[in-house]
Amino acid sequence: MDERVREHAAVLVDWSARIEDGDNVVLSVGPDAHELAVAVAEALGERGANLLATYSSGEITRAYLRAHDGEFDENPAHELALVENADVYLSLGGGRNTSATADVPGETRQAYNSARSELREARMDTRWVSTVHPTRSLAQQANMAYEEYQTFAYDAILRDWESLADEMAQMKALLDDGSEVRLVSNGTDLTMSIDGRTAVNSAASVAYDSHNLPSGEVFTAPYATEGEVTFDVPMTLHGESVRNVRLEFEDGAVVDYDADQGEAVLTEIIETDDGARRLGELGIGMNRGIDRYTDNILFDEKMGDTIHLALGRAYDSNLPDGESGNDSAVHVDMITDVSEDSRLEIDGDVVQRNGRFRWEDGFE
Amino acid sequence: MDERVREHAAVLVDWSARIEDGDNVVLSVGPDAHELAVAVAEALGERGANLLATYSSGEITRAYLRAHDGEFDENPAHELALVENADVYLSLGGGRNTSATADVPGETRQAYNSARSELREARMDTRWVSTVHPTRSLAQQANMAYEEYQTFAYDAILRDWESLADEMAQMKALLDDGSEVRLVSNGTDLTMSIDGRTAVNSAASVAYDSHNLPSGEVFTAPYATEGEVTFDVPMTLHGESVRNVRLEFEDGAVVDYDADQGEAVLTEIIETDDGARRLGELGIGMNRGIDRYTDNILFDEKMGDTIHLALGRAYDSNLPDGESGNDSAVHVDMITDVSEDSRLEIDGDVVQRNGRFRWEDGFE
Repeated sequence: MDERVREHAAVLVDWSARIEDGDNVVLSVGPDAHELAVAVAEALGERGANLLATYSSGEITRAYLRAHDGEFDENPAHELALVENADVYLSLGGGRNTSATADVPGETRQAYNSARSELREARMDTRWVSTVHPTRSLAQQANMAYEEYQTFAYDAILRDWESLADEMAQMKALLDDGSEVRLVSNGTDLTMSIDGRTAVNSAASVAYDSHNLPSGEVFTAPYATEGEVTFDVPMTLHGESVRNVRLEFEDGAVVDYDADQGEAVLTEIIETDDGARRLGELGIGMNRGIDRYTDNILFDEKMGDTIHLALGRAYDSNLPDGESGNDSAVHVDMITDVSEDSRLEIDGDVVQRNGRFRWEDGFE
Repeated sequence: MDERVREHAAVLVDWSARIEDGDNVVLSVGPDAHELAVAVAEALGERGANLLATYSSGEITRAYLRAHDGEFDENPAHELALVENADVYLSLGGGRNTSATADVPGETRQAYNSARSELREARMDTRWVSTVHPTRSLAQQANMAYEEYQTFAYDAILRDWESLADEMAQMKALLDDGSEVRLVSNGTDLTMSIDGRTAVNSAASVAYDSHNLPSGEVFTAPYATEGEVTFDVPMTLHGESVRNVRLEFEDGAVVDYDADQGEAVLTEIIETDDGARRLGELGIGMNRGIDRYTDNILFDEKMGDTIHLALGRAYDSNLPDGESGNDSAVHVDMITDVSEDSRLEIDGDVVQRNGRFRWEDGFE
C-alpha cells in the first residue's frame, strides 16, 4: 500500500475525527475508495473503535432512484437508527464516474433529499468528516493524469493542519468582530450582514467544527444579501457543467440569475424551496496546497485566493445557540476567483486584496 | 447488464425476501457484487422499499481485526439499532479472494464473533436472505472458467422455485410422517430417528423459512443415529481439504472415525464439545440445477442426488416449540453422493433409489 494512503487514514482518524476507544463509527465507502477504507479500518481497529461500513455508490443510487415512483418514505427507521446511534460518520468518496447519477430526474432527486432531512440532521450531530480517495475518475474530472492527481490530492490533504489552523484563526477573529462584508471583483459587488454570526475556522477537524478533509477555509453564515455576484470558477452540479453563474440579490433573496452554461440545473436548485434562494455560507479559501481548480467542490472551495458562497442551508455552527439560520434541502457552493482586481472588506476595512491577506507580506 | 443479473435480483427480491412497499432493507454488498447490487437496488426502488447498502469486504475485516487488541465491545449500538429496525437483510456475497481473512488469528475471530451474538440474533429476526454474485474468485474456487461458472451459478439460482417447492413438499410430508430413516450406499448403512421432528422445505424463500438463494433441500434434525456413513463429496473445512470421511455411530454419537485426507481437522471438529459428536441435520439435496461440487457449501449441500448430514447444532425450525435439539458450537455439513447403488428408506419404504424419488419416472 502507498504510504500516503496510511498517512491519509491517520490524519482522518486522529486529527479530523478524534477517534477514541469505543466510538461507534459509520464508514461510508465509495466503490473505488476500497484501499483507503482498508487503511482506515486498520486505524480504527488499532484505536478500539467499532466499525460499520456502508457502501456509497452513484450507480446504486441511480438505479434505485430511477426505478422509484418518487413517493419516498421519510427518514427510514433503520438508517435513522444507525446514524442516531453513531458517534462518528466518516465518508470516503471515490466512485468510478463522477456523472454516475446524471440521468436521475431532478424532481426525483429533490423528493428523495426532502424525505431525508432528519437523516441529514442526525448525521450532522455526529463527529462527521468527508474526504475522498484520489481515484482515476477524479483525476479525469480534474484533467490530470492519475499519479499527477494523487500528488495534487495528497498535497491538499497531508498538510500541517495545526499551523494552518493558527493562521485561519486571524480571519475568524475578523469575521466574528465584523457586522458587514462587502466583496468587490469582476462582475461582483455584494454586501452581506454577518452581525451576530460566528465564523468557523475550518481546519479539517471536528475539534474546530470542521468536517471536510481537506479543508482550509474560514466560513460564516451571511444574511440580508444585496447586490450581484459572478462565479467564474467552473463547476459541475448534478452532473452538469455550469459556467459563469450570475446571481442578483434583493432583501437577502435571489431575484434574478443566469449562467453561460447549465442554467437549467441552476433553476432546479433555486426552485427547490424558499431557502434555496438565500445564502447559507460565505467561505474564504485558505488552503494553498490546493493551487488549481479540479472540478471537485471538496477541493475547489478551499483553494487559496478564492471565495465561495452557498445557496441553501446554513450550518448551525455559525449561529448562536438555539437560533436557526437559512433552511433548505440544498447547500450548493459556487466559487469566485479573487486573485486579481478584487477586495474583501469587513465594515469598510479591506482584509484581503488580490488574494493577499492583511497579515501577509505583499498586502497593500 | 447481463439479463441474468436482473433475473437474479427479481428472484431475490420477490420470491426469496417477499419485498413490499415500505420495507426497510439492509443490502450487504461484497466488493465484486456491485453489478448485482445495482440490479437489486433497481428492483427495490420499483417496489418502494427503503434501501441502505452496507459494504462487506474481507480485506476491511482483516485489516480491522488484525489491528484490534481483541477486547471487542459487545454488539455495538449503531449496528444493532440498524439491524433491529430493518425488516429485511439481504447479503450479496462476492469478494475478490475467498481466503481474504486467512491470516486473522483464530482467537481474534472467535472473540469478535462472541461479542456479536445479539447482532446475529437480530439479523435472524429479519426476513434475511444470503446469496452470491458469481465472481471470478468463486469461479477459481470451483476450478471453472468465469463464464462457465456464471452459467453454473445461474442454473442453480434461476429455477422454477414454485414447482420445486411443490416437489419438495412431498419429501417434507414423508419425513414429517416418518419415524426412522435408513440410508444405504457404498460404505454407508445408517439409521436415524426423526420421530417428532418437522422437516423444512427449503425453497429459497422466507415464506418457507428458507434463507439461502440458491436453496433446494429438505432438512430435518435426526437423533439416535446408529451405523456407519461415508462422505465421498470433497470439502474444505477450516481452510483444509477433507476427503472421504467415515463416521461410525452408536447410541447417537460418533464412536469411531477416519478420513483419507484432513483427519486432523475432523478430530478438531469432533472434539469441540459433546454435541459435535452427534448429528444436527439430515438434508436431502433436490436442486438439480446444481450438478457438481464447487467447494462452496451454499451450492454443494443443495446438489441434486446428494444427501448431507451435519455434526453439531440442530435448527430450532425442525423441533417442536420450546424443545431444544442437539446443541453445539459447530454445525459442519458433510455430503455423500446417492446417485448410484444407494437407497433412502423411511420406516422401511424406499423413497429414493439411485437418486430418483418415488414420485418420479424411472423409480423402481
